[in-house]
Amino acid sequence: MERLAAHYLIETPLPPEAAAAVIAGEQSSGTFTAVPGETAALKARFAARVESVTPLETVPAPSLPTGRAPAPAHHRARVSISWPLENFGFNLPALVSTLQGNLYELAQCSGLKLLDFDVPASFAAHFRGPRFGIAGTRALAGVGGRPLIGTIIKPGIGLSPAQTAAAVAALAAAGIDFIKDDELMADPPHSPFDARVDAVMRAIHDHAARAGRKPVYAFNITDEFDAMRRHYDKIVSAGGACAMISLNSTGLAAAKKICDLGALAIHGHRNGWGMLNRHPLLGIDFPAYQKLWRLAGVDHLHVNGIANKFWEPDDSVVRSIASCLAPLHNLPPVLPAVSSGQWGGQAPETWRRTRTLDLLYLAGGGIHAHPGGPAAGVRSLQTWWRAAAEGLSFAQAVARHPGLAKSVEKFGPKK
Amino acid sequence: MERLAAHYLIETPLPPEAAAAVIAGEQSSGTFTAVPGETAALKARFAARVESVTPLETVPAPSLPTGRAPAPAHHRARVSISWPLENFGFNLPALVSTLQGNLYELAQCSGLKLLDFDVPASFAAHFRGPRFGIAGTRALAGVGGRPLIGTIIKPGIGLSPAQTAAAVAALAAAGIDFIKDDELMADPPHSPFDARVDAVMRAIHDHAARAGRKPVYAFNITDEFDAMRRHYDKIVSAGGACAMISLNSTGLAAAKKICDLGALAIHGHRNGWGMLNRHPLLGIDFPAYQKLWRLAGVDHLHVNGIANKFWEPDDSVVRSIASCLAPLHNLPPVLPAVSSGQWGGQAPETWRRTRTLDLLYLAGGGIHAHPGGPAAGVRSLQTWWRAAAEGLSFAQAVARHPGLAKSVEKFGPKK
Repeated sequence: MERLAAHYLIETPLPPEAAAAVIAGEQSSGTFTAVPGETAALKARFAARVESVTPLETVPAPSLPTGRAPAPAHHRARVSISWPLENFGFNLPALVSTLQGNLYELAQCSGLKLLDFDVPASFAAHFRGPRFGIAGTRALAGVGGRPLIGTIIKPGIGLSPAQTAAAVAALAAAGIDFIKDDELMADPPHSPFDARVDAVMRAIHDHAARAGRKPVYAFNITDEFDAMRRHYDKIVSAGGACAMISLNSTGLAAAKKICDLGALAIHGHRNGWGMLNRHPLLGIDFPAYQKLWRLAGVDHLHVNGIANKFWEPDDSVVRSIASCLAPLHNLPPVLPAVSSGQWGGQAPETWRRTRTLDLLYLAGGGIHAHPGGPAAGVRSLQTWWRAAAEGLSFAQAVARHPGLAKSVEKFGPKK
Repeated sequence: MERLAAHYLIETPLPPEAAAAVIAGEQSSGTFTAVPGETAALKARFAARVESVTPLETVPAPSLPTGRAPAPAHHRARVSISWPLENFGFNLPALVSTLQGNLYELAQCSGLKLLDFDVPASFAAHFRGPRFGIAGTRALAGVGGRPLIGTIIKPGIGLSPAQTAAAVAALAAAGIDFIKDDELMADPPHSPFDARVDAVMRAIHDHAARAGRKPVYAFNITDEFDAMRRHYDKIVSAGGACAMISLNSTGLAAAKKICDLGALAIHGHRNGWGMLNRHPLLGIDFPAYQKLWRLAGVDHLHVNGIANKFWEPDDSVVRSIASCLAPLHNLPPVLPAVSSGQWGGQAPETWRRTRTLDLLYLAGGGIHAHPGGPAAGVRSLQTWWRAAAEGLSFAQAVARHPGLAKSVEKFGPKK
């Protein structure tokens, strides 16, 4: 029987091998005491197995409370555990319960983070993965050879459908590739979903009739399940191309079902992500997270960006982008959505560190608050990326393209 | 316009008032720079508002990494923020994005936990909440005046439908009120869901024909969405009463849709919870968590138990039970599912600290591994709770009921 292996960073007052055995036990028989009926044959077939334990550093204090008497030392280790595929089948929520589940509550661990997991090809083959992904989204937007330049309608909340459509028309005229709803904008009384779709798609179709090219608009369908379905169908019937889902807010089962429909590219917003990852010894790391959502079929996934406004270091962003683009058996890559405090000036460093143009590069304030207006903001981002792809550094880009000075003055590093 | 207020514990290198303003700004306009179009009138109508800031202690080091230069001091505070209901409407996933969303990633906070939130009556009135809850589950199981005694089929994985049904028959004969699948058991090849439901319900109906009373069985329908719907319908058509969902694994949108169906009591398993709450300055606290799931309509919610096998301290368990039972406008209470390392001996302390019998008291190993067998395990739990409800202490219970000695010897505190 093929197995699926998960890799954890743990911290424990026990010898790491003993903690690994507890993890494996909890995620197979799952009780605090031996029970009758758990025969040797049954254990051999279904029990989780400790594949490896690699000791790391020892620290004096626990990273997380353990509810137990203080221990003198806490040992960190990388631990790999495997399960037969038979234990959960092709059921992603059951897989999540197996890989994560009760583990975060173990008193025997003072830290536990799911770093990554490896699925056999036969498991991946059961999933379609991103229906659009990079190639499909490029085709929808008509963009090749450079990152897709995108923006978020700002203010995030408060605009009417007509105001939103007017902003879309201006952005389309300025040559934007992609526009998304803010994640706080769903279906409020001042901008009912259907009215927003109608108004925005009219603006996009008008633009297409003139310019022969449609920017992709990601309408935020995050909602209760029936409303998500209804809103999805509304986008399809209005000729739209993309729906956005706040993945952590709706959850895996609903989002997977929406991805399965296959008519729209799914823009996966990861708001809430900090709760799942910000502590170095708790939660889930991005390589595992993107794998779950790639299996579910999400086409775009947020990764923050270089010099973002949030806490996330650049190294972490670079690693996230790489994991979205890494091969995963039959599943196409996810398009990384770079965002948070982006204004174009980060393009040279983003290129230098990732060497990919397969990005959806999103700027909110960086476009809307550009001193020359949103159209100038869009042009500025395009220029920044042209310069970056030519291998120019930040300083070289500014010297070569005097038009960038305005963005540097407004958004760049303060003297 | 009525408002919804959320209460946070934060830690910040800034003056707490400044950090609170950042939180409110991020969750309304949501960008790093002022944008045109965000007029004063629009702000007055839609902006999040800081309602209060209560300073707490100051600590020298950040609880979470900030990605910024070290600050000399980090101030903790309780902060309340409010939003007009209009911003999200009656859309629970959009509410989650508003109350949590990007907040956990703010560099301006080195800690942030959503403690609780208050909804106006008009908001709650839009939701049915638990369709069965305490009264409905008691009616299904035919149990009044004492906690429902329940168990989990163990081993958690590996038994065939016939073996599961045999265990159910024995437990039913022993007088169990409630039985649930293990959360690692969903729809694997060795125990296909439909076959398990058929076998288990046959055992339950056979028992009912003899004894006139049906224990409630919570079948784990955690799966992708279509499978959840199909499995739900299977339980209904087989005459079952309850479905279990791993809430964090399936997510809010799918779980709410299942709750809305209204034909089965929904047993909410919170596996994965430790990731969301174990760090004292990250995530979501149980009072807020249970409120979200009560609004969604979950009937039972796991809360661990006194002296549980996990890390959670008793004080936290007691507070969780109280929050499940606390009034929430028109919404009935959630039945707290007490579990984790429970064997009966915790009953006196559970009663002393909670003074409620409205509990679903679950023991896995505590029943299956009882020295006299599962039937003796069930009787032992019933006796423990009778003693507890009479106000007996642990020692008094053992002295009054000599039959309890066996459970103490097996599971009790080691000398």
